[in-house]
Amino acid sequence: MRTFAVVGHLARTDGTFSLEDLPGSAGRMDLLCRCVRASLFLSHGLRRDVECRLLLLGPPDPPRIVRFSGERVRSLSPDERSAGSLLKKALSIPAGDLYRESTPGVTVRRGSLQDLLDGGFWAVLDERGRDLRKEEQFGDRFLLSDHRDFTPEEEALLAGLPRYSVGPRALHADDAITLVQNEMDRREAAWS
Amino acid sequence: MRTFAVVGHLARTDGTFSLEDLPGSAGRMDLLCRCVRASLFLSHGLRRDVECRLLLLGPPDPPRIVRFSGERVRSLSPDERSAGSLLKKALSIPAGDLYRESTPGVTVRRGSLQDLLDGGFWAVLDERGRDLRKEEQFGDRFLLSDHRDFTPEEEALLAGLPRYSVGPRALHADDAITLVQNEMDRREAAWS
Repeated sequence: MRTFAVVGHLARTDGTFSLEDLPGSAGRMDLLCRCVRASLFLSHGLRRDVECRLLLLGPPDPPRIVRFSGERVRSLSPDERSAGSLLKKALSIPAGDLYRESTPGVTVRRGSLQDLLDGGFWAVLDERGRDLRKEEQFGDRFLLSDHRDFTPEEEALLAGLPRYSVGPRALHADDAITLVQNEMDRREAAWS
Repeated sequence: MRTFAVVGHLARTDGTFSLEDLPGSAGRMDLLCRCVRASLFLSHGLRRDVECRLLLLGPPDPPRIVRFSGERVRSLSPDERSAGSLLKKALSIPAGDLYRESTPGVTVRRGSLQDLLDGGFWAVLDERGRDLRKEEQFGDRFLLSDHRDFTPEEEALLAGLPRYSVGPRALHADDAITLVQNEMDRREAAWS
């Protein structure tokens, strides 16, 4: 299953943030909401074979992991407020060390980057990585950072993972997800 | 100059819409706002050599054209509300047959699809088109529709224009813009 995971270094970890201020007081939650869209949406429907995981590291009670399952999610629209609203609900329930469902297809737990990467073959999307388009093969789990670089502690955990770039310009995380999806779609359909 | 133009078949044509309901009563304005982001934003800055034009055809007073200039726009953030807020301002000033600036880098006029395509070599992004990646050459002006197909009247105006597809799956207009930008970035940087 394709999995995209995004680290939100400033993203709020309770449900009190305002949908009217996703970029500011919610800690660039707008970007994370767009990553959910880029992961799960086709033109007229959902990608049922994709999961999007968000690691939220902002105040008041980090870390939290929220997962959106394309197979099971309901009541999700492409706009930022829609994903933001489901995130608010996920961050409003008590979080333990196991995933718990807050709304259909959305699950939340207390958990770190290590918990986020729970097995599987991960790659890091990084503008200094190798060109994904030129790789003969790659896995189906991709980790991205938000508008901030990975911290030294995070980098230590990611040492040894393959790193891929999607193009010559540094792009928003949601654009990078769109470009990876396209490369995978093309290969599945024997387009490239 | 790279130019992306998007037809918003239902998009509201006055400034009374709510930023809290861009997908609904504003007529899928959320999608148009994301097209502005995909056209103009790099990771940490604006694409100064890009213009995004929106054709708004919804009530109460269509048609309107709003242009965002990457070179001159100010106070624009990547989130939907930010572009939506500049659109509200653009749609709140009286519109004539000439472009008039509503805020820095944002201009508005009364105008049709024909007015939108004011010269230049346009191509249509269309999932039934030829694979853009396999084209040896293409222009720098791309027209897209929102979540609706072009109408028969619009199609008549577009007859004869080249049509390109960005991949095997039908995607949101903002994803298609991201993919075209990437193809152009790669060619400019001799990456592909």
